[in-house]
Amino acid sequence: MSGTWGKNIELAIFGESHGEAIGITINGLEPGINLDLDYIKEEMARRAPGQNDLSTPRKEGDEFHILSGYFNGKTTGTPLTMIIYNTNQHSKDYDKTKDIVRPSHGDLTGYVKYKGFNDYRGGGHFSGRITAPLVFAGAVCKQVLKEKGIIIGSHIKSIKDINDENFNNKNLCEEKLKDLRKEHFPVINKSSEEKMKEVIRNARDMKDSVGGIVECAAINLPAGIGSPFFDSVESTLSSLLFSIPGVKGVEFGIGFDITKLYGSEANDEYIVKNDKIETTSNNNGGILGGITNGMPIVFRVAMKPTPSIGKMQKTVDIKTMENRTIEIVGRHDPCIAIRALPVVEAAAAIAILDLLKES
Amino acid sequence: MSGTWGKNIELAIFGESHGEAIGITINGLEPGINLDLDYIKEEMARRAPGQNDLSTPRKEGDEFHILSGYFNGKTTGTPLTMIIYNTNQHSKDYDKTKDIVRPSHGDLTGYVKYKGFNDYRGGGHFSGRITAPLVFAGAVCKQVLKEKGIIIGSHIKSIKDINDENFNNKNLCEEKLKDLRKEHFPVINKSSEEKMKEVIRNARDMKDSVGGIVECAAINLPAGIGSPFFDSVESTLSSLLFSIPGVKGVEFGIGFDITKLYGSEANDEYIVKNDKIETTSNNNGGILGGITNGMPIVFRVAMKPTPSIGKMQKTVDIKTMENRTIEIVGRHDPCIAIRALPVVEAAAAIAILDLLKES
Amino acid sequence: MSGTWGKNIELAIFGESHGEAIGITINGLEPGINLDLDYIKEEMARRAPGQNDLSTPRKEGDEFHILSGYFNGKTTGTPLTMIIYNTNQHSKDYDKTKDIVRPSHGDLTGYVKYKGFNDYRGGGHFSGRITAPLVFAGAVCKQVLKEKGIIIGSHIKSIKDINDENFNNKNLCEEKLKDLRKEHFPVINKSSEEKMKEVIRNARDMKDSVGGIVECAAINLPAGIGSPFFDSVESTLSSLLFSIPGVKGVEFGIGFDITKLYGSEANDEYIVKNDKIETTSNNNGGILGGITNGMPIVFRVAMKPTPSIGKMQKTVDIKTMENRTIEIVGRHDPCIAIRALPVVEAAAAIAILDLLKES
Amino acid sequence: MSGTWGKNIELAIFGESHGEAIGITINGLEPGINLDLDYIKEEMARRAPGQNDLSTPRKEGDEFHILSGYFNGKTTGTPLTMIIYNTNQHSKDYDKTKDIVRPSHGDLTGYVKYKGFNDYRGGGHFSGRITAPLVFAGAVCKQVLKEKGIIIGSHIKSIKDINDENFNNKNLCEEKLKDLRKEHFPVINKSSEEKMKEVIRNARDMKDSVGGIVECAAINLPAGIGSPFFDSVESTLSSLLFSIPGVKGVEFGIGFDITKLYGSEANDEYIVKNDKIETTSNNNGGILGGITNGMPIVFRVAMKPTPSIGKMQKTVDIKTMENRTIEIVGRHDPCIAIRALPVVEAAAAIAILDLLKES
Repeated sequence: MSGTWGKNIELAIFGESHGEAIGITINGLEPGINLDLDYIKEEMARRAPGQNDLSTPRKEGDEFHILSGYFNGKTTGTPLTMIIYNTNQHSKDYDKTKDIVRPSHGDLTGYVKYKGFNDYRGGGHFSGRITAPLVFAGAVCKQVLKEKGIIIGSHIKSIKDINDENFNNKNLCEEKLKDLRKEHFPVINKSSEEKMKEVIRNARDMKDSVGGIVECAAINLPAGIGSPFFDSVESTLSSLLFSIPGVKGVEFGIGFDITKLYGSEANDEYIVKNDKIETTSNNNGGILGGITNGMPIVFRVAMKPTPSIGKMQKTVDIKTMENRTIEIVGRHDPCIAIRALPVVEAAAAIAILDLLKES
Repeated sequence: MSGTWGKNIELAIFGESHGEAIGITINGLEPGINLDLDYIKEEMARRAPGQNDLSTPRKEGDEFHILSGYFNGKTTGTPLTMIIYNTNQHSKDYDKTKDIVRPSHGDLTGYVKYKGFNDYRGGGHFSGRITAPLVFAGAVCKQVLKEKGIIIGSHIKSIKDINDENFNNKNLCEEKLKDLRKEHFPVINKSSEEKMKEVIRNARDMKDSVGGIVECAAINLPAGIGSPFFDSVESTLSSLLFSIPGVKGVEFGIGFDITKLYGSEANDEYIVKNDKIETTSNNNGGILGGITNGMPIVFRVAMKPTPSIGKMQKTVDIKTMENRTIEIVGRHDPCIAIRALPVVEAAAAIAILDLLKES
Repeated sequence: MSGTWGKNIELAIFGESHGEAIGITINGLEPGINLDLDYIKEEMARRAPGQNDLSTPRKEGDEFHILSGYFNGKTTGTPLTMIIYNTNQHSKDYDKTKDIVRPSHGDLTGYVKYKGFNDYRGGGHFSGRITAPLVFAGAVCKQVLKEKGIIIGSHIKSIKDINDENFNNKNLCEEKLKDLRKEHFPVINKSSEEKMKEVIRNARDMKDSVGGIVECAAINLPAGIGSPFFDSVESTLSSLLFSIPGVKGVEFGIGFDITKLYGSEANDEYIVKNDKIETTSNNNGGILGGITNGMPIVFRVAMKPTPSIGKMQKTVDIKTMENRTIEIVGRHDPCIAIRALPVVEAAAAIAILDLLKES
Repeated sequence: MSGTWGKNIELAIFGESHGEAIGITINGLEPGINLDLDYIKEEMARRAPGQNDLSTPRKEGDEFHILSGYFNGKTTGTPLTMIIYNTNQHSKDYDKTKDIVRPSHGDLTGYVKYKGFNDYRGGGHFSGRITAPLVFAGAVCKQVLKEKGIIIGSHIKSIKDINDENFNNKNLCEEKLKDLRKEHFPVINKSSEEKMKEVIRNARDMKDSVGGIVECAAINLPAGIGSPFFDSVESTLSSLLFSIPGVKGVEFGIGFDITKLYGSEANDEYIVKNDKIETTSNNNGGILGGITNGMPIVFRVAMKPTPSIGKMQKTVDIKTMENRTIEIVGRHDPCIAIRALPVVEAAAAIAILDLLKES
């Protein structure tokens, strides 16, 4: 089974890029949550394409309709279902090329798994568009977390080989996370912004694409959330993050770099500060033994370059089993990492709320 | 809830380092599997401490007893439960230091989550020793996978800043994986072995520790295993891998490095070869859209340096809330990454069998 | 969490009686199932109100829209979502009486559980209308089962104290089940039909209601489906059946009557017949040790009298905590047992397909 | 998958009647529960055979060993595992008769499901002995419930055609439930006790067996526990109850008898009493819309006659497919319903705690 996730907040996602609608059912929400629809719309807009010259000019209808679980402006506690009707589709385009699988997409693997019955148009159920319902669910969860003082935010840590500063104990605070959310291109060190944009524009002009790393943080979580086996904070977050199309790596704290340190450098020492226990560094990203220690949760997600590129690529026809070439035409993002930020944050919000409800 | 994992192969793990026993119950195994107990013992031995001068000289009783689900040398199809009695314990040692939490361990977070009622002796349920039952489960799953031609193996990709060669289309084959399994210190490029060992011995001599990266591969999987949402191959594997104590990062294919490439470099092009579709590169690690494409699954796991070090560290007394220092005495591995190899392979085997049973 | 059910066929149900729409997402269906939409419509029509003078004259819009998981007339293997828009609502009616809880309904318990935030109009998420999506899911599962030769059918075993014949080894066959499906008032012994109808009409004329027992059977299941602990056939079926509003009892085989027999009478003896093992009686309803034995699965479900009656009843105002009386006006079925047949069959079909996919 | 149950209290059961040990792992228990081992032993003793002339004289070693999750007399919050070693086995006896399946047992269905690899000795994993770990888990849950004021108890409602009084608003109270627990043969109306015992002794003397109905109640539950879809109180309880070997029916409130009433008789009217809302009758057994209404939960479970009888029965040899006869020798209970009481209560306690933890 595939389409559901979660233990305490349970998602059931559905839809295809060119079907009638996409959507999600969320179970486990408290009754009486006062949904801030404007906030949800803002979050959806952060993910929506067509906002600037760095993303696809394609417009998607992202207007959401809440079908159930919502009454008099508040959640009812019963399943909350939201759908988005698909519009602006050019479905016919896909018929002639459907057997020529796009490299690094789910075309081939979807064809094999679903025995050729999957909806191939625009990636179908594999489309990045299916992350819109995730962003909706994340926006709802963020509101619940905010009531508890927990704030989630992210920035573009790198585009190709251009790096932004990392989150650290100095720059990581509520204001910074809120400021980053307002940016179309959120970086900590503004000097990296233009270089990154140039790399993206160059790639676009070459009919190519680039990848990037998203760094995300959640602050003000209490200590004691998560479990050693098997619902560690890392396990729960990563299982949702790796469902986002294009994610190929997830690391917590300083992640892979921690392997380059001595234990005496890597260990986060404890001190008592204002009657609270803190760590002097946060190399473990706020998680020890799978459980939060009260420090900020920090993690990074590797987003691969957009697989849809205009350059010629070798591929095959899965019906005739002949070698072919493909030049993907159409309106694609030269860098999906940018639009991935609200999706990564949404996954974090959902996973953290799920864990919080367990404790 | 924490102690269970899986949809089609379900694990229920239990035990504490200094309790009466540790163990696991495995559900979902076919009846009639002819368990090769010698093979299981070998796998357990690969994880066991005390094998050479690079690991702790502490001996652990790792003799396993199968309590149920096993009859006349074969699995019955009903729950398979295995326990290992704890021996060689120095439990008294822990009482006097129990409130002085060890940095980068689960001591503090376990105390908070379990409200002070957790068994603190030797890390309790957070102990690396709890991975022994995982290795048992993995050994059983590996046998089932082997019947289907699927082989899993791993090597030490790096220790601190010393690197081994990566798995690639040339060196990755059944013989190589089998050869690596026979080694006490499995690396692909033998020239890196001595340098790595020297780094570890130096760390040990300085009462310090080092981390490392484990690279693991699974070959001969059919295409079509996994799902886009939410049971992607990456999601399923990572959720189990991140339960292994010390893991701080997981990446598939070329992982974080894929973010440094252009799409035209990153994409794995398709060709027809011997009437089969292959990719000319494997930057995606055998997984597209969350589903296997028939190429080897390749992933890497970042293991942090052993947190238990003899060097003096700042910490706190969680009862008195006073600042303290700690020098951890006792017999600890200077590098847990080495003994992590069979654990990482076990997690991969369990996760892959779970996914295979779904398809 | 509440709104999901199943391990191998997973349902996520949603909606309220007077919200925008009700619906369901079904996970775990094979790709390539050729949905017979006419058959699905027939099943929906069997449950729909307003068909004759024994049910409410209220018309419900039961037209279903498939939003996802369906392409070119076939299931895709990805989540299948169906919605039914709510129409013909008189929502305003509910506002003035919302605090006067209807006896034997979910009004009070829903108010407590959902802290007053639930949609109270027409029973909201507790409405019998929410069984329409279950019937849809059941119709899909029935089609899959039919391909395997498995047929499910039911009849009205009793209305109040008027009894129909039971299913037995003589009358239980494919034709009988198909014939029963065609009837608006399915009974085995036609002579009971008029008596039952008279009881119902009398109740209606007295502004009262009556209950009844639905007997359901599934034939041609292979032996070996189910489990002893904890996914017995009885456990799986009953967990879904007891979600149908109004069900207060479930029994398998001869059920509670088996307690009145000696073991020598109750036991189903085995014989070999045409090289197949059969039982000479079927007191266990085709299930032993939680697992099918190849004989027909037979079970009965007790449906309570419609709680909505026009007679005066004592109740309370949950806001003011004052004693009140209520006479429920409106269009209600005098006997919900009749319309429950397709719902009971649907639950059986879903549960059996779930179990079959596990074996 | 079979061997696990639960969402918030998760059980993983294991073991065979004649294997090395049977046991259970319980997840989801709070840390710091002070286990009353004497109470647990009493509960285990209530289920144990050999207590009087109405049950099998066979003695079972029911001494339990807690392996994990228990430290300094309290639960730790990590998985609680308990095992019971099997002793007093006459395993050799089973080899010669293993292909002659016992009617109404799981012998045939287990053979088919597990392809002949199941442990057939003494019923293996199908044995009633496997309910001992359930009673252990139930005893732990009962302690937790007791802290919240919730008491569970049961009595023998009927043996064959001899009836005891039902629970009703008059006799159902804490003292009554506690008194019943102290009895070896708990009935409300003492005058039925001797008649029931006579029926059982007669059956035993005829080498036959009898069934019975167990009635169970849980008092002092708060209103608002459970869900409409799909985790209704009835669904959750019945899914566990139907895993108890021999259970063929489960009904809540007045159950099947409610179908014989008019709605005006069946509905439980509300009144305000001492500022609390109560119902004047409890025909719905404390559950409306799948959710508790604060009245006692009352349900009945039909236990079939012990299938193991000394009388000659027709059966088959599953290897040779020949008709055979069987006269089961050995030490069997003439009526399993009596020993089922603590098992039914245990299932109720586990299910209710699971539901409480969700709310």
